[in-house]
Amino acid sequence: GDVCQDCIQMVTDLQNAVRTNSTFVEALVNHAKEECDRLGPGMADMCKNYISQYSEIAIQMMMHMQPKDICGLVGFCEEV
Amino acid sequence: GDVCQDCIQMVTDLQNAVRTNSTFVEALVNHAKEECDRLGPGMADMCKNYISQYSEIAIQMMMHMQPKDICGLVGFCEEV
Repeated sequence: GDVCQDCIQMVTDLQNAVRTNSTFVEALVNHAKEECDRLGPGMADMCKNYISQYSEIAIQMMMHMQPKDICGLVGFCEEV
Repeated sequence: GDVCQDCIQMVTDLQNAVRTNSTFVEALVNHAKEECDRLGPGMADMCKNYISQYSEIAIQMMMHMQPKDICGLVGFCEEV
């Protein structure tokens, strides 16, 4: 399979999930904060603060970009 | 579509691309470093150093985990 096409599919479904499931984003953000605890006590708080600070802007950006542009940004699709 | 299944598909194809295309990882890492320049001169070097330092371990980890476990870690699949 093609990583670029896979990525476009995933981002499209992610955007739909964010639009249709009101708790999807909250669950994702909470999950990410839990993963911060893997980093140990020193880094965990920094990691959680970072997520609190940037998750909203990241989601806004993700919802306002085309899937192909997001996948290009990450390096999974050739950028135009 | 289901974000978990999309993620598993993408990670599976990513792992295959890393295994079969010797320049895939290098291109991805170089792309990521270029994106660092979007952060401005102060942050760009920090970002590039961070990528240099962690990209190899991240790729090793990605290649030694099951796609479903990676997608669970990121929060796109329910963890078992």
